[in-house]
Amino acid sequence: MSGNTLGMLFTVTTFGESHGPAIGCVVDGCPPGMELAEADIQPDLDRRKPGTSRHVTQRHEDDKVEILSGVYEGRTTGTPIALLIRNVDQRPKDYAKIATSFRPGHADYTYLRKYGIRDPRGGGRSSARLTAPAVAAAAIAKKWLREKHGVEVRGYLAQLGKKAIPFKSWEPVYDNPFFAPNAAIVPELESFMDALRKSGDSCGARINVVASGVPSGWGEPLYGRLDADIAQVMMGINAVKGVEIGAGFRSIEQLGTEHSDEMTPEGFLSNNAGGILGGISTGQDIVVSIAIKPTSSIRLPRRTIDIEGHAATIETHGRHDPCVGIRATPIAEAFLALVLIDHALRHRAQNADVAERVKRVPAQAKKAKAAAGKKLEDPDPLEA
Amino acid sequence: MSGNTLGMLFTVTTFGESHGPAIGCVVDGCPPGMELAEADIQPDLDRRKPGTSRHVTQRHEDDKVEILSGVYEGRTTGTPIALLIRNVDQRPKDYAKIATSFRPGHADYTYLRKYGIRDPRGGGRSSARLTAPAVAAAAIAKKWLREKHGVEVRGYLAQLGKKAIPFKSWEPVYDNPFFAPNAAIVPELESFMDALRKSGDSCGARINVVASGVPSGWGEPLYGRLDADIAQVMMGINAVKGVEIGAGFRSIEQLGTEHSDEMTPEGFLSNNAGGILGGISTGQDIVVSIAIKPTSSIRLPRRTIDIEGHAATIETHGRHDPCVGIRATPIAEAFLALVLIDHALRHRAQNADVAERVKRVPAQAKKAKAAAGKKLEDPDPLEA
Amino acid sequence: MSGNTLGMLFTVTTFGESHGPAIGCVVDGCPPGMELAEADIQPDLDRRKPGTSRHVTQRHEDDKVEILSGVYEGRTTGTPIALLIRNVDQRPKDYAKIATSFRPGHADYTYLRKYGIRDPRGGGRSSARLTAPAVAAAAIAKKWLREKHGVEVRGYLAQLGKKAIPFKSWEPVYDNPFFAPNAAIVPELESFMDALRKSGDSCGARINVVASGVPSGWGEPLYGRLDADIAQVMMGINAVKGVEIGAGFRSIEQLGTEHSDEMTPEGFLSNNAGGILGGISTGQDIVVSIAIKPTSSIRLPRRTIDIEGHAATIETHGRHDPCVGIRATPIAEAFLALVLIDHALRHRAQNADVAERVKRVPAQAKKAKAAAGKKLEDPDPLEA
Amino acid sequence: MSGNTLGMLFTVTTFGESHGPAIGCVVDGCPPGMELAEADIQPDLDRRKPGTSRHVTQRHEDDKVEILSGVYEGRTTGTPIALLIRNVDQRPKDYAKIATSFRPGHADYTYLRKYGIRDPRGGGRSSARLTAPAVAAAAIAKKWLREKHGVEVRGYLAQLGKKAIPFKSWEPVYDNPFFAPNAAIVPELESFMDALRKSGDSCGARINVVASGVPSGWGEPLYGRLDADIAQVMMGINAVKGVEIGAGFRSIEQLGTEHSDEMTPEGFLSNNAGGILGGISTGQDIVVSIAIKPTSSIRLPRRTIDIEGHAATIETHGRHDPCVGIRATPIAEAFLALVLIDHALRHRAQNADVAERVKRVPAQAKKAKAAAGKKLEDPDPLEA
Repeated sequence: MSGNTLGMLFTVTTFGESHGPAIGCVVDGCPPGMELAEADIQPDLDRRKPGTSRHVTQRHEDDKVEILSGVYEGRTTGTPIALLIRNVDQRPKDYAKIATSFRPGHADYTYLRKYGIRDPRGGGRSSARLTAPAVAAAAIAKKWLREKHGVEVRGYLAQLGKKAIPFKSWEPVYDNPFFAPNAAIVPELESFMDALRKSGDSCGARINVVASGVPSGWGEPLYGRLDADIAQVMMGINAVKGVEIGAGFRSIEQLGTEHSDEMTPEGFLSNNAGGILGGISTGQDIVVSIAIKPTSSIRLPRRTIDIEGHAATIETHGRHDPCVGIRATPIAEAFLALVLIDHALRHRAQNADVAERVKRVPAQAKKAKAAAGKKLEDPDPLEA
Repeated sequence: MSGNTLGMLFTVTTFGESHGPAIGCVVDGCPPGMELAEADIQPDLDRRKPGTSRHVTQRHEDDKVEILSGVYEGRTTGTPIALLIRNVDQRPKDYAKIATSFRPGHADYTYLRKYGIRDPRGGGRSSARLTAPAVAAAAIAKKWLREKHGVEVRGYLAQLGKKAIPFKSWEPVYDNPFFAPNAAIVPELESFMDALRKSGDSCGARINVVASGVPSGWGEPLYGRLDADIAQVMMGINAVKGVEIGAGFRSIEQLGTEHSDEMTPEGFLSNNAGGILGGISTGQDIVVSIAIKPTSSIRLPRRTIDIEGHAATIETHGRHDPCVGIRATPIAEAFLALVLIDHALRHRAQNADVAERVKRVPAQAKKAKAAAGKKLEDPDPLEA
Repeated sequence: MSGNTLGMLFTVTTFGESHGPAIGCVVDGCPPGMELAEADIQPDLDRRKPGTSRHVTQRHEDDKVEILSGVYEGRTTGTPIALLIRNVDQRPKDYAKIATSFRPGHADYTYLRKYGIRDPRGGGRSSARLTAPAVAAAAIAKKWLREKHGVEVRGYLAQLGKKAIPFKSWEPVYDNPFFAPNAAIVPELESFMDALRKSGDSCGARINVVASGVPSGWGEPLYGRLDADIAQVMMGINAVKGVEIGAGFRSIEQLGTEHSDEMTPEGFLSNNAGGILGGISTGQDIVVSIAIKPTSSIRLPRRTIDIEGHAATIETHGRHDPCVGIRATPIAEAFLALVLIDHALRHRAQNADVAERVKRVPAQAKKAKAAAGKKLEDPDPLEA
Repeated sequence: MSGNTLGMLFTVTTFGESHGPAIGCVVDGCPPGMELAEADIQPDLDRRKPGTSRHVTQRHEDDKVEILSGVYEGRTTGTPIALLIRNVDQRPKDYAKIATSFRPGHADYTYLRKYGIRDPRGGGRSSARLTAPAVAAAAIAKKWLREKHGVEVRGYLAQLGKKAIPFKSWEPVYDNPFFAPNAAIVPELESFMDALRKSGDSCGARINVVASGVPSGWGEPLYGRLDADIAQVMMGINAVKGVEIGAGFRSIEQLGTEHSDEMTPEGFLSNNAGGILGGISTGQDIVVSIAIKPTSSIRLPRRTIDIEGHAATIETHGRHDPCVGIRATPIAEAFLALVLIDHALRHRAQNADVAERVKRVPAQAKKAKAAAGKKLEDPDPLEA
C-alpha cells in the first residue's frame, strides 16, 4: 500500500486529485447493521468544505457525497462502503504557472522528484482537498463510536497566529467560522483575518482535539500505541508540523511529581497523560494538540526555481485559505475518530474475553477533583 | 499484528519483557549481501544501555546481542535476522509492590485494563528496556543507509528540564553522558542531575534528531507520509509526549513569508520544513524534535489505588533514571533510521525507473545562504 | 483490511455489489510514467463481460470503465488509480425469492450468518461480477509487466465437464467463446453446452494459466512464496475449489527422478515445478491450473431452507452461466498478473542491488530439450 | 514484510536456517489469559520432528522449544510469545557439494538468483525444518481454538505414491509413523517405503486435513476468503504442489445438481463445499487436501549445473526423507489452525455485535442424512 490506505481493520483507501473528475474513498471493515445514509456523512463534509465564510478559500465545491456500495436498505452490510465526491469547480487555468515553477513550502518539488511526473492542477494529490474523503469516512466512524461506546470526538481552534484562544465552552465552536471555543474573541479573530488577507500573507494555527468516553484498554504495545497512531494521522494532515498528547512539550519542564497523574478511587487527579499511558487509553479524555503551518500559497512574491532549475519568482493568485488552520478542526476530529474505531476493533479482536477483573477507576475526574479540593468548573480539556 | 511489528518492507518484530528470560527482535526485509556482525550492532546498544554514568539507572545489563539467523559468512542473506539479548539483571523482588498498586504515569493500569493480566516485573512489556531490540535493529538500518545512500542519523539532548542546551557542534555529543552538543554546559547538567537525583524527583527533556544525506523523494502521499511515519515512531518511544518536524510548534506564530522555505538554484534558503514537504523528503536535513516527560517512577510518595480500587500510596524504589531523556538520544536516532530504510525500500519498489528528469536542487544550503548573504557557520540543524 | 484489498505494494481495493449503483476499485502503488487510458483496460473487461455468446449469462452489462484519478495527460502519476464501472442492468425483481431462501452452493447462507444482513440483489458482494474490477486493475498490471519485463500472462479452457480439451496452440483461444486452445473441438463444446443449458443443470471446468517471461527471483520465503500467493488469489476466485502449480496433484504419484526438473547449461529439461522452486520463480513458465465447480444457480429444483430455517425448495431462474468456467479464463489471467506485479515490486525493493553474480540458466527450454533429444514442438505449457 | 510473517491479527514471524544456531518465531496477537507452557507445544513438535521411525530422515533434532516471552505465571499476557528452538545436529560437511551445484527440484538455484547469496547448510531458509516454528505457534492456536470454540484440527495421510489409503477412523492416525487412518494398511506402507528407500528414489503423497467445530461466519469476502487463505498457507508448505477444498478437482466433472450441497432443517445433505461457501465457513467440517511432491534430495545421480553454469551431476547423500509427505500431516494441521485463529479474531473484530438473527442450520449432518435416507456411519470427511 503506497500510502493511500489508513488503518488495519477499519480501513480507508482514498483516491483522487484536487481537480480531477472525482475524489473519494473505500471504507472497509465497518461493522454491519448500522443505519447509514448520505445524510449522516454530509454534515461533516459541509463543516470542512470551502467557501463557508470570507476567511477561507472562495473556491466553490458542493462536496456532495454519494454512497456507491456497502449499504443495503439503509444499513451497513459489512462490505466496502465506497464514497464518491465529484469535483465541480475545476479552473485549471489558475494553475498554469505552478506547472513549471515550484511553490515554496509546497509539495510541487517533492512530488516531481519522487514520481518524475505530477498533476499540477490544484496541487493534485497533495491538495488539502484530499482530506474530504477522510472526513466522510470518519463520519461513519464517529457514528459507530457514538452509538456503540458513547465516544464523542470534538475539536476547536486554540490559537490563530500569535493569538491564543482561551477555551470557554464547546457551544460556540459550532456557531462561528473559526471553530473558536469562545464567542467573545470572534470579532478579534475576524479583524485579524481581514488584515491578514489584505496583506497577502498567511498565518499558522493550533487545533486541539478531544475524544471523551473512550474506555480504557484501547491501543497496543510499542508500535501500535494509540498515541503513536494518533501522532501519525495528525502529522499526516496537510500543513501539520507538530503533535502533542496531553501535556506535550510542556512535559519537558515538568517535574515527575507534577506530571504524573495521581489516582484516587474517584478517578485521576489530572490528565497530563492526555488519556493515554503506555500507548493504551486510560479512560480519561484523549487530548491532542497540533501545530499548523501558515498556508504556503500566498500572493506575495517568493524566490523559487523553475523545473529547469533556473531562478524564478512566484506569487500564487489562486483562491487559497489565508490560514488553513481555520478549516482544520473537522479534519483533525476526523482523523482522531478513524484511529479510535480501528483500535476499538483491534482491541476486541484480541481481548473480547478479558473479564472485568479490575475495578475500573472512574475516568470522569470530577469527583476526584472535589475530593482533592480542586476547582470543578474548569472546562479546558488540557486542564482536565 | 498486535502492535509489535514496525515497518512495511524493512520490518522489526520485537518480543520480550524487561525481566523475562530474554528480549529481541526479528528483522525482515534487509537487503542481502551487506557485511554484518554483532560488532556492527553492539556499539549502538552500548550507547543506550543502563549504568554508564551516575546520572542514569544503575541497573546492570550487558545487553550483549547474538545474531541467530540471516547472516552467512559475514553477510546478510536477505532472510530474517533474529537478534537475541538475554536479560541478566533480574531482581523481581524490587517489583513486589507494583504488582498490586498502580504507579502514576505508568502503563500498569492500562495494561491490566486491556489484558486482564500483566507481567509486573520491571514494567514487563511496557518497559523502556524494550527499546533495546529496536536500537539493535536500527544499527543494521543505519549501516545500510550509510553505505548505500550516505545517510547519517544523529541526535542530541537539546533541553534538560528547564535548561536549554544551545547546539555548538556534533563532536561533544559522543563524549558526555548526556549526549549534549555543547561541552561547556556539561558541568551544569551534572550539578542539576545530582540535585534532582537527591531530591527523589524526575524531569523531562527535549531530544533533537537529524538525518542528513536523505535524497529527495522518500515518503508517500497522505497516510504513508514520511513525516507521519516519523511522528508515529517517535510518539511510540516510551515517555514521548510531543513530536515536531522542522519549525514544529513555532509554525503557529510564523507568517507564510517567514515559514515557507524559498528556493534558489543553489538550494533552499531555510529549512522550516524540516526536510519534508507533502510527506516526501526534499533532500535537506530531516529535523525532528521530541518532548520526553519526566520519569514516572520516583522515590517520592504518590497517591494511587491498588488493584482492588482502594486508595494507596506508592514510592518507587527500584533503580530508575531520574531523567529518561538522558538515554533517549540513541533511541530516537534508531527509530528515525528505521523509518528511513523502510521508505528507501518502498520508494525504489515503486519508483526505481523514474528518470532523473528534473534538475536537482542542491540540498546543501551553504551556497544558497552565501548567495542570500546569510551567515554560513551556524551549525544548528534547526536553523539550517 | 476486511478482505477487500489485494496485494502489498501494488494493491487493489475493490468495492460494490452486483446490483448496486456501481462497482470499482482503487489501484495503489502503480509505478509512475506509464501510458494509460481507458482503452488499455476495456478490452480485458470486454473479454470477461457477460452476454458475449449464447453459452454464457444473457445479463447485459456494458462494463464501461472510467478512470477517476491517478492519470495525468495520459500517464500514470504514481498516485491511486480509481476505476469506476456503473452497473446498468439491474433487475432486482429477479432476486425476490433468494432474499428469503438460501441457494445451495451459494454464499447466501454464509453472508447472512456472518454479517446478520446481506444484499441479496444478484448475489450482492459475493457475485462473480465482482471480478470485473480485478480484471480492470490487472489490465494495468499486465501492461507494466509486458513493457517492463516482457511478461505475458495467458490462459485457456483445459476441460469442460468431463471433456478434456487438448492444447493445440494459443491462437484459437482468442477466437472462440470458450477460450479453447483448439479450434477443432469447439463444435463439440457448443453442442455440449446447448444440451446442458437445455437440461437446466450446470457443469464444472478446468482453466490453465501460464505466465511466460517471468525472470527468476520473484517470490519470497515461507509465507510470501510466489506459489502460495498464486494459490491464494486463484482459490479466491468465485467457484474455484482447487489449485495446482506445475505437476500439481500428479506429483503424488511421481518418483523423485521423474518429478525434479534436471538442469543443463541450456536450461531446465522439464517443468514439473511450474516455474517456481522454494516459492521463488525459476525463469521457466509459471503454470497454474484451477478447478471450477458447476454453477450453483440452476433452474432445477433443489432442497433448501428459508431464513426462518424451514424446509423449502428453490429454483433459480435469473440469467446465469451454465458453466461459470467459460468466462473464467480472463479472470484467472488477471489474478496471476496481479500477484506477479506485486512480487516484481517487492523483489526490487529488497534486491535491486543484487549483482548478476550467477550465470543465468536459460529459462527457455528449447535448447535444453534439443540437447536432451526430446521433441521440440510440443506447445503444451504443462509439458514444457 | 518479506514473506516471513503469517497472519493479520494472530501473527507468526519466523526466523532461522536449518543449520544456523537456532530457529524460532514470534507469535503476536494471542488472546491473553490462556494457560500456556512448553508442555502444550512440545507434543506437536515431537509429532513433526525427524528421526521418529526408519521411514523418515535420521537427522537428530530434539526440537526442544523454549518460551522466551509473553507468558507470566503460566498464562498468556497478550504480548508477543517468542519461541526458540536451538539447532543441535549441525553437520555442515554434509552440504559441501550443494554449495556449488544446484539440486534439481530444490530452492538452491532460485535463492541464489534472488539474493545473490545463500546459506547452503541444510537448505538454509528453504529447509522443511522451518516448518517447526509454525508447528509450535500453531499448538498455541489449536489450544485456543479448542478451548474457546471446540474446534479440532486433524489430518491424515490419504495417499502414498500410487497407493491410496482408505479412511477408516481417526484412532490409528496417532499410532503409526505414517499418520495413516487405517491400521490394516500400515504393513503395506512399511514394505513400500523400505523398497523405496533402498532404491534411492523418493515419492509423493496426499494429506487431508479436517477442521471440525468451526462456526459459520469465519472468512471474508474476495481477497480475505477463508478458502483462499487456506490455499495460501497450504501451497506455502514445502513440496506442496496442489490444494483442494471439499470436492476440489472432482468438481470439474460434477453437475450442479450433484455438487451443490442441499440444505434441510436438519443440516446440509453433503459437503462438496468443504465447509466454505463464498469464502466464509458454513459450520460444516472444513476439508482440505494437498499434494506433496516427491523429495528432491535423492541418492540417484541427476543432471544439473554448478554455480558457474557448467554441466554437473549431483547425488544427495545427506539424511533425507524418502517421502516428505510422511511427516507433513502435523504441518498441514498447523497451518490450517493458524488460518482459523486469525479469522476467528478478524471475525469478532468486525462482527462481534451481529445478533443471532438467523436460525442456525445444524452443521452436523447426521440428522440430515438420516432424513435423506443416506447411510450414517461413513466417517470419511470427504464424504461427510
